[in-house]
Amino acid sequence: MNTLDTLFNPKAVAVIGASSKPLSIGNRVIKNLIDFGYRGKIYPINPKTDEIHGLKAYRSILEVPTGVDVVHMVIPARFVPDAVDDCGKKGVRHIIINSGGFAEVGPAGQAIENDFLARAAKYGIRILGPNCQGIINTDPDVRVYCNFTYTRPETGHISLVALSGGVAEVIHQGFVTLGVGTRIYASNGNACDIGIPELIRYLGQDEKTRVIVTYVEGLREPAEFMAACKEVATCKPVLAMKAGRTAQGAQAAASHTGGLAREDLATDLIFKKTGVLGFNDVGELVQAAAAFATQPVPHGNRLGIITNTGGPAVIATDILAEAGMELPPLSDTAKAFLKERLFPEASIHNPVDVLATGKAEHYRAALDAMMNDDNFDAVLVHFVTPFFVDCNAVASEIVAVSQQGRKPLICNFMTDRKQWSDTAQILETGGVVCFDLPDQAARAMAALVRYQSLQQRKVGHVQSFGPATRHSAASILEAVHQEGRSLLSAAEAYAVLDAYGIPTPTWRVVNCIEDAIQAAETIGYPVVIKADAPDIVHKSDLGAVALDLTDATAVRIAIEQMVARLNVGDVRYLVQKYVPGGLEVIMGAKAEPGLGHAILFGMGGVYVEVLKDVVFNLAPVTDVEAREMVAGLKLSPLLQGVRGQKGVARDKLADMIQRLSQLVCELPTIKELDLNPILAFENDIRVADVRIII
Amino acid sequence: MNTLDTLFNPKAVAVIGASSKPLSIGNRVIKNLIDFGYRGKIYPINPKTDEIHGLKAYRSILEVPTGVDVVHMVIPARFVPDAVDDCGKKGVRHIIINSGGFAEVGPAGQAIENDFLARAAKYGIRILGPNCQGIINTDPDVRVYCNFTYTRPETGHISLVALSGGVAEVIHQGFVTLGVGTRIYASNGNACDIGIPELIRYLGQDEKTRVIVTYVEGLREPAEFMAACKEVATCKPVLAMKAGRTAQGAQAAASHTGGLAREDLATDLIFKKTGVLGFNDVGELVQAAAAFATQPVPHGNRLGIITNTGGPAVIATDILAEAGMELPPLSDTAKAFLKERLFPEASIHNPVDVLATGKAEHYRAALDAMMNDDNFDAVLVHFVTPFFVDCNAVASEIVAVSQQGRKPLICNFMTDRKQWSDTAQILETGGVVCFDLPDQAARAMAALVRYQSLQQRKVGHVQSFGPATRHSAASILEAVHQEGRSLLSAAEAYAVLDAYGIPTPTWRVVNCIEDAIQAAETIGYPVVIKADAPDIVHKSDLGAVALDLTDATAVRIAIEQMVARLNVGDVRYLVQKYVPGGLEVIMGAKAEPGLGHAILFGMGGVYVEVLKDVVFNLAPVTDVEAREMVAGLKLSPLLQGVRGQKGVARDKLADMIQRLSQLVCELPTIKELDLNPILAFENDIRVADVRIII
Repeated sequence: MNTLDTLFNPKAVAVIGASSKPLSIGNRVIKNLIDFGYRGKIYPINPKTDEIHGLKAYRSILEVPTGVDVVHMVIPARFVPDAVDDCGKKGVRHIIINSGGFAEVGPAGQAIENDFLARAAKYGIRILGPNCQGIINTDPDVRVYCNFTYTRPETGHISLVALSGGVAEVIHQGFVTLGVGTRIYASNGNACDIGIPELIRYLGQDEKTRVIVTYVEGLREPAEFMAACKEVATCKPVLAMKAGRTAQGAQAAASHTGGLAREDLATDLIFKKTGVLGFNDVGELVQAAAAFATQPVPHGNRLGIITNTGGPAVIATDILAEAGMELPPLSDTAKAFLKERLFPEASIHNPVDVLATGKAEHYRAALDAMMNDDNFDAVLVHFVTPFFVDCNAVASEIVAVSQQGRKPLICNFMTDRKQWSDTAQILETGGVVCFDLPDQAARAMAALVRYQSLQQRKVGHVQSFGPATRHSAASILEAVHQEGRSLLSAAEAYAVLDAYGIPTPTWRVVNCIEDAIQAAETIGYPVVIKADAPDIVHKSDLGAVALDLTDATAVRIAIEQMVARLNVGDVRYLVQKYVPGGLEVIMGAKAEPGLGHAILFGMGGVYVEVLKDVVFNLAPVTDVEAREMVAGLKLSPLLQGVRGQKGVARDKLADMIQRLSQLVCELPTIKELDLNPILAFENDIRVADVRIII
Repeated sequence: MNTLDTLFNPKAVAVIGASSKPLSIGNRVIKNLIDFGYRGKIYPINPKTDEIHGLKAYRSILEVPTGVDVVHMVIPARFVPDAVDDCGKKGVRHIIINSGGFAEVGPAGQAIENDFLARAAKYGIRILGPNCQGIINTDPDVRVYCNFTYTRPETGHISLVALSGGVAEVIHQGFVTLGVGTRIYASNGNACDIGIPELIRYLGQDEKTRVIVTYVEGLREPAEFMAACKEVATCKPVLAMKAGRTAQGAQAAASHTGGLAREDLATDLIFKKTGVLGFNDVGELVQAAAAFATQPVPHGNRLGIITNTGGPAVIATDILAEAGMELPPLSDTAKAFLKERLFPEASIHNPVDVLATGKAEHYRAALDAMMNDDNFDAVLVHFVTPFFVDCNAVASEIVAVSQQGRKPLICNFMTDRKQWSDTAQILETGGVVCFDLPDQAARAMAALVRYQSLQQRKVGHVQSFGPATRHSAASILEAVHQEGRSLLSAAEAYAVLDAYGIPTPTWRVVNCIEDAIQAAETIGYPVVIKADAPDIVHKSDLGAVALDLTDATAVRIAIEQMVARLNVGDVRYLVQKYVPGGLEVIMGAKAEPGLGHAILFGMGGVYVEVLKDVVFNLAPVTDVEAREMVAGLKLSPLLQGVRGQKGVARDKLADMIQRLSQLVCELPTIKELDLNPILAFENDIRVADVRIII
């Protein structure tokens, strides 16, 4: 049995800090448990009162007559550690700590948090919180509401977990407003013990949870989160919204969580890599969750639309087309079927327009036609309620077809819900997910298809490029570290690339002009000379680079000028084959705290600045992901070749991305690595400059 | 008095086709007039019944005892012309025709439409429709509901006009759901007489209309629409949604309106040029309209946020930042003010977080601080309802500050509206516009600011480049037309450009090799030679262009090869200065039916294909618009110069755009004009190739 089972299915809950004051949290939690119809025993703990909301209150948890599965604490922080001890003695398994005043307020609070955590560990108690809302489980056999908030969910199939109770509740209330039920709700605040990844894993195994929703403002445990989502998202949709995606938003998030504002690239990459569906809009997230909770996932992206009024179908079509969905025509069989059954003026193209005067049998015919037609993977129904049509009958047909469960069916139900409350009721109790606006219905449908394509996508394999060369590269980095440096010299950096088979122009490192000339003769003219000293970072700014040197004299003059210009000690020179022309691209890697490295690929030259034409992924990058990166730039068609121009060696770019990925995975002390530019030709690619920081 | 005043403020309405059958339109219109509390007289017209809904029915409009301002017709199309005659005899001013079966069904219906239009014109009767819903006016002194639909609007300040009743009603119902009132509603279907532009002009002058909302799927009368919006949108916000923006959406729109699917560039350009606020999402449009109906337009884009829970403020911040709004810090005065008044743990940065325990006085302090602080142009309030706070008191303070009307104030009210119905009621009756989600509130606020910046923007002036050269260019086009050609020869096209001072490389047209050599000597080497014959369209494909010819021999060989290769009669040769290098850009003009020309500017070369890096505007293009076009490309930074590279002569590009605009305005027979490529240098620009089709 999962250790969280008891937390979400407690047979007895005690509230330490239960209060008889009506507007206190300690009172509200008791009231919520009662009002929500909790099936287990409720024990208010309060040394100063005998009874709260008609329940006998106990002076201490130790006086409670039965076992207690979950304790809900609503007491000042300083009293929590001793209360945890009492719970341990009582054999309590889980504690939810509503109270604030812990890690979020600074070192003093952190000390109290560490204290109670150590005591809890001694007894094997798991903690949710502190500084959190708590949990809800709508299971009719449980109906536990250990939470001080107000949302009153119906029983359903969406589970919702988030650190931030504020947004979690907004989302949760959205489900209620939309008339779609919840399975489990958990908001864990500081998450000092039970974290979001553990909750997601638990919900992944929970049969009654069909879809998991979460909200993040930046991840506490990115690697754990990634592992949990990777495990869960392939078998169950995980929908996530991330806020703080702008600099200003990140600043606002940092200000309310007490963290540091920083660009959070990792979260989006984790979503992408693990198949989590990301959302930027609360409403869209809520609506998509409702669709997943009630509808099967479609087998493809080919959509049929039925309507009784033209405009809303046009609006939906725009959104679906932009989301990459196809709107194929009906099969000839389906057309013939509808030609016999619809009004002569009805449109039997896709969208099918049964007309405002279309009756229940017309809707049914259109629904049947699309459900039977292999041209369609899913059906979107628009239904405005004309007063001269039996709308309840239409609704009943939509319900009947929806309940066949053959293909996903989403309804845009455009009406005054007060006047057509019966019709709305038929659709809702029939399990048809209804939205008010064509845009909403279309976006919810697009989310179903997006998940389908994420499930179907080929993830590919992480290639390992042998022979094992880690040792030579690792020893270079170790030596740099020993010397107290962070920036590798050019020679060191090129040697690291060589060790991983990343193609560079032939190079030698020399100490003087004569050796440089000899090296140039061996390599073959033209050559590049780069002064290579620890003090020189921006080589071209300092005049430490000379390009396209075609003979010994040119090499001599170039080095003499550098000596005169640079005036730094301990200079060596990198002599390298000069490779003219080629399309400039860039690659890079950047350490992401707690998560390994992000890998970057982009267009080089001015396009990096002007277009920011770059894509990212997380190491290890698979073969499929590397090819997607090469194909994923705005200017990727240039790599393929346009207007009769030949493209560049894209397979070699994908290969280099994977080698770079393996390199940083095996050399985790690398903080930043830039290959800029890489010169790409029709049959070859070469790294023209490299910078590595450990 | 405006001619539409009587339509929207009738003292008596007759319904021809009134019916006693409950589920008929002729019955519903009577019922809607009664239910909505119409203040005027209602005359059901039906030869076969004496009474409908308790009202005396008349056999004919001619038997009605008083004057009739508006007749609502719900009779089959074939009876309409005679009924119009009767109305004329009766002195009726306006007829609303619900019935379909006219132009929208084809030539036979068109003939009936023409018939009744001619009769109406004879009597000076204005027609709304046919094939339309009708009108609503919520004015308490009028309350006319000549419409068969179901939406029951409150009295308010939003007016809504659209051809398509389906979407108009969805939008209208959105206002009701949001609790915001309507002023006038009009859906005019086929719009055979009273069109959307006339309605917009009327509403522009209607004092009780604060904001005009419309929905289009492509414009019937683009020039009229543009003129009306230009007049109205500067003094009153016009919010518009266009559907059919994707190819698939345009196809769906064509299928339900019976029109042709075509790319509709013009509508978006008209929105932009006239200052209409465009929307792609019905919900966002509805929410923005609610904001405009209740709030003043802000003076700038600097926003203050107040919240009692962190996450929603982060979500709103993301959206506002993406919309280009600023979130400045509070002034020192405001900070000091709040430091004294808020809880010590409250955040007095922007967003100000009064904390979940924040009370009415804390909200009031934060509101006052931001209203008094010159750092802010508008305030967004997030308000989640903790049960341990007096939420009604908080709502009352928000209302009090909102009613001061000093700066726009929008509220994201996050709650269960059933449990907090009192609080919701306080906010609603207090005129505070409330949304359920942070995203919605933020987008509505962004719309207010977007209108402000549209109002503030400099439109600029249409420059006229003299001396008047129209005649020489016009006579060239006339000659081409006389010859039955549509494509201008290179010589003709360059002459047209010369006439408008559009810089081209020096050119001559010659008939033979010897003349070509002489021309080349005069122009100066290197030169380009282009074979110029009506049959040759794609010159470079046919080997009809020779570049970079540096002497007489090269000219001779080039022409000899062309003669051998082309084998077409009547060839002349364009000899032109060869201009190497330069950054390639393109310009173009395309006739938009009923609207003049769209002008295009973009990056040339492969970037046109790969990035589609082009911007459009409508001729006549002003100086300001031309500069905006030059600055509006994704790659515009390349024109300015990046990484120490020099930019190109952007002022000359803006000048050329305006000359091109003047050219097509004065030569309206031009269908397409392409300047591709134009070579741009640091101090000069030159058109390297031109194609003109009339």
